[in-house]
Amino acid sequence: MSLLDTTCAAIVDTDGEAAQAAQRLLDGKTKPRRSLGRMEDLACQVAAITRCSRPPLPSKAIVVMAGDHGVAQEGVSAYPPEVTWQMLLNFARGGAAINVLARQAGARLVVVDMGVRGPAEEIPGVLGRRVRPGTDNFTQGPAMTVADALLALEHGIAIVHELADSGVGLVGIGEMGIGNTTAATALLAAFSGASLHVITGRGTGIDDATWARKVAVVEKALSVNPPPGKSALEILAALGGFEIAGLAGVVLGAASRRIPVVLDGFIASTAGLCAAKIAPKTAGYVIASHRSVEVGHRLVLSYLGCDPLLDLGMRLGEGTGAALAMPFVESALRILHEMASFDEAHVTDTGR
Amino acid sequence: MSLLDTTCAAIVDTDGEAAQAAQRLLDGKTKPRRSLGRMEDLACQVAAITRCSRPPLPSKAIVVMAGDHGVAQEGVSAYPPEVTWQMLLNFARGGAAINVLARQAGARLVVVDMGVRGPAEEIPGVLGRRVRPGTDNFTQGPAMTVADALLALEHGIAIVHELADSGVGLVGIGEMGIGNTTAATALLAAFSGASLHVITGRGTGIDDATWARKVAVVEKALSVNPPPGKSALEILAALGGFEIAGLAGVVLGAASRRIPVVLDGFIASTAGLCAAKIAPKTAGYVIASHRSVEVGHRLVLSYLGCDPLLDLGMRLGEGTGAALAMPFVESALRILHEMASFDEAHVTDTGR
Repeated sequence: MSLLDTTCAAIVDTDGEAAQAAQRLLDGKTKPRRSLGRMEDLACQVAAITRCSRPPLPSKAIVVMAGDHGVAQEGVSAYPPEVTWQMLLNFARGGAAINVLARQAGARLVVVDMGVRGPAEEIPGVLGRRVRPGTDNFTQGPAMTVADALLALEHGIAIVHELADSGVGLVGIGEMGIGNTTAATALLAAFSGASLHVITGRGTGIDDATWARKVAVVEKALSVNPPPGKSALEILAALGGFEIAGLAGVVLGAASRRIPVVLDGFIASTAGLCAAKIAPKTAGYVIASHRSVEVGHRLVLSYLGCDPLLDLGMRLGEGTGAALAMPFVESALRILHEMASFDEAHVTDTGR
Repeated sequence: MSLLDTTCAAIVDTDGEAAQAAQRLLDGKTKPRRSLGRMEDLACQVAAITRCSRPPLPSKAIVVMAGDHGVAQEGVSAYPPEVTWQMLLNFARGGAAINVLARQAGARLVVVDMGVRGPAEEIPGVLGRRVRPGTDNFTQGPAMTVADALLALEHGIAIVHELADSGVGLVGIGEMGIGNTTAATALLAAFSGASLHVITGRGTGIDDATWARKVAVVEKALSVNPPPGKSALEILAALGGFEIAGLAGVVLGAASRRIPVVLDGFIASTAGLCAAKIAPKTAGYVIASHRSVEVGHRLVLSYLGCDPLLDLGMRLGEGTGAALAMPFVESALRILHEMASFDEAHVTDTGR
């Protein structure tokens, strides 16, 4: 069996009984029942994922994967393709938004070159997992071969295994890749059948003419690479990107290790959707950090069955939403560990 | 002049030019313009408040004030009045939700007895500022005298001056007091004229019969203490509570020192509204942390002109929402300080 097959086979249902046990613990704490709302849900979800009613406070990592897209040559972005490489260097030097927010969250940042167009030499501080320097233009054929998609997925799985072995218990995901909202839109259209006019967004900030071109480009991609009859892996290969496939691998690997994954915006969440299309039980392991301005994000999250914790009008990617939301997981678990019960604190409990 | 008068006189408009300068700095950072959404607004607001385009990272404190309410004897809460005192002890021992979340946020927690019914001796870890052991039942007359309201306000102002003098640059507020959603509802009704059927909520979790009683109790309070013709201070005295008046003082004091104040839920935000009714420019200094389940909160925030950062279905009070949101202020300022510009990082800027 391949690494992907063994990983998918290891993904089991989350543990509803552990979630119920966590809720019972929360109900005994000195506060009105359920008065911490979504924070209580979050504690229970992590209990279900880790199969433990009081999960330990996890060590945190954010995996940011970068890749270039052949479709960028169709002029679908407000930025030129070389920005992917430039931003990879910015990540390596610590100057991007995700560097700042990962530091604030106390999360280790793992930057991965999954397939950027740029010089071949290694960048200090960047994991080199380049499948190829950019996908092919999917308006002319598949973005990548199934073998390349599998390789990217398995790089992601291997990275999360290393993180888990080093003690990481909470993973956030993020991405960088000029043109990748176009790829994510094509994937979402393929998986959902939703109208491109509804799910195509403005990416980094395109004007109306570029938006209309983006819709036409995705339409062409879907006619050149018709989804019907294809497996999730084949769709991911035809319409995805190396960073999207890599992140889908991270999500699958994390689920196989019973580690919660904090999604980011539209593209990272679409990687989560790809993972759930490959192994449906994965959906129980993901936490939606925020709702992006990017219009398709809402639909991706509804397919994954998750409500975002934050709605801050953000549309940057890189894992920035994940970094902002990861401390909430920590807070929710601390409530389970550190709050006194009614009995311990001698506070009158009316059961309300 | 009284301390309240000098404080109100020191509250000036926030500095729009500093906010614009902060936005220009943000626009030069390596990200599409405005792609960090509300985080950018937050950085600009703190710039405006502190009159500095790149405000330093602030030291943080959360002030939680507790008080008892004569109206609690009308049976308007799901919990008996002694819970206020019991929870004050729980705060002092570190076992309440706010203790946990303040630790997670890295904020100093300042717990204040503003007027709890309980033994007279000091509790280690609690600032004793008890005006009286509980307000009077405002269905039979004013909750407190104007002199007592002024004393409570000035305790709050003095506490924030001490915090500011010790280097605190960001203040969160929270409260505890059985019966205090009833007081906050009465204050909101007095200031807004809104229908009690629309703004009266479920507090700690009351049933339909108790809710109907709560509406009737507030109606009676408003007829016994008719708001028309009264000053904001007189309304606060008639319908408020010692912890609400104290927190209004904290908000006024912070604004006079150009320190941003992170509000919490319905009651703490109503204290903010009282402060803004006393000195309208105060509204520019408050940040709404979250939207509470408590139905009147929405209206309070709209009067203050602020949108909450979080909406997590919470209704606990104590400053828990403030504690969850305070790290966002820190993140927003770190973006200003630590992110590289397009020039510094050699990233192509298309101005989008």
